[in-house]
Amino acid sequence: MTQIVTAAVLLIGDEILSGRTQDTNLRTIAQFLAPLGVEVREARVVPDVHETIVATLNEMRARHNYVFTTGGIGPTHDDITADAVAAAFGRGVDVREDALAILRPYYAARGQEINDGRIRMARIPDGASLIVNPVSAAPGFQLGNVFVMAGVPSVMRGMLLDVAHRIEGGAVVHVRTVRANGVREGDIADPLGELAKAEPGASLGSYPFVRLAGKDIAYGTNLVARSRDKELVDRLAVALADIIRAQGGTPETDPVD
Amino acid sequence: MTQIVTAAVLLIGDEILSGRTQDTNLRTIAQFLAPLGVEVREARVVPDVHETIVATLNEMRARHNYVFTTGGIGPTHDDITADAVAAAFGRGVDVREDALAILRPYYAARGQEINDGRIRMARIPDGASLIVNPVSAAPGFQLGNVFVMAGVPSVMRGMLLDVAHRIEGGAVVHVRTVRANGVREGDIADPLGELAKAEPGASLGSYPFVRLAGKDIAYGTNLVARSRDKELVDRLAVALADIIRAQGGTPETDPVD
Repeated sequence: MTQIVTAAVLLIGDEILSGRTQDTNLRTIAQFLAPLGVEVREARVVPDVHETIVATLNEMRARHNYVFTTGGIGPTHDDITADAVAAAFGRGVDVREDALAILRPYYAARGQEINDGRIRMARIPDGASLIVNPVSAAPGFQLGNVFVMAGVPSVMRGMLLDVAHRIEGGAVVHVRTVRANGVREGDIADPLGELAKAEPGASLGSYPFVRLAGKDIAYGTNLVARSRDKELVDRLAVALADIIRAQGGTPETDPVD
Repeated sequence: MTQIVTAAVLLIGDEILSGRTQDTNLRTIAQFLAPLGVEVREARVVPDVHETIVATLNEMRARHNYVFTTGGIGPTHDDITADAVAAAFGRGVDVREDALAILRPYYAARGQEINDGRIRMARIPDGASLIVNPVSAAPGFQLGNVFVMAGVPSVMRGMLLDVAHRIEGGAVVHVRTVRANGVREGDIADPLGELAKAEPGASLGSYPFVRLAGKDIAYGTNLVARSRDKELVDRLAVALADIIRAQGGTPETDPVD
């Protein structure tokens, strides 16, 4: 039996819901987890509201093997994630010496004052282990199956370096994409649906595209087969190419991973 | 009393959770709704799973004035949104003549066959009103307080044109941004927190930035005041500029909206 390991992503911040900020962290996290054998099954964006973060986090951590949060661990008053995570776990939270020991030399070397705001970034829930921030020092942390990371994408990506070795993944989902050049989604919907019905062990997705290619318009559909069974997705890649040829299109299969 | 009107956004699709596709629809919807006086309070990404869509939609539509969904209304077997929305409302769903009347001439004019897959895009829940798709014909629909739109960003944006007139907004949230050039977030966290405490009628956010400016690195923090009280945000923009000057920074205030 193949083991299925799932994750949820919790994006914390008014700025994403207001449309001020375009999130890119969900995609980064999903792409980071896929080869580790962890599948992101849900994602939510919540505002900077204590009760909402606590309730959402408790739902997610009960339901999934891992939860990844981004945002709300900076120096300002609206950075309330550490306190909310502590509350969700029923733990205390305070300025911790191991976190301060990272911040003090960082700011000293730059001649920057370590004021109340910056000390706030050393607030870590009891029992949490720190996640190294190779970009701007202030650490993230792990508590149980929850990984708490920064919202700034470059800092979040840096923190993932200290997350990979903590993950026990399951069976990897294999993915093959076959590009149907010159074939519209609606042209292949029927045979694609029949194939999906015949092969319930895989999921088949179709994603149409239109783009300018020089002065011409290139259109087509990306057909994607996903399954934990590698032989099955390889077989489906061949079947998808056949469907495309039957519609007069030119299949283009991605290199085997 | 100012009326508060809230919305939730439900992004439907395996391809966003897998990291294949970068969502941009949440931001587009949030920016579309803000001037109408509708505040997005939560957003979720769910996979193409019937039960998950039904349960999430029912939670959201009970909790918010409006719900906006994107994705899952195309011609293929994995496009299950119309059926899930119908199930959430306990309504029937079938191919509808008014939707077919839009699709038939569209495909006929292009010499494209109207096969089972394309007919599938005319599946609309009983009692729903169609949302015009000015890009590729296949309509979205509105059922109660739920607006069901396409996932392809250009099509989704086109559909919003037929949504605006159906929205009864509340009090608009006013926003002023003051850019603190040359000031780090940690430098102003303390006075910013005091200001936030003194003015509970507004929310104050801070968003640090670093970028290349020619050969130099430009850094600073964007300070954002948000409130339904316009006079308050105007007053806060002045107070934020004062905080920045006190730290030796140069404030840059956006033009009044």
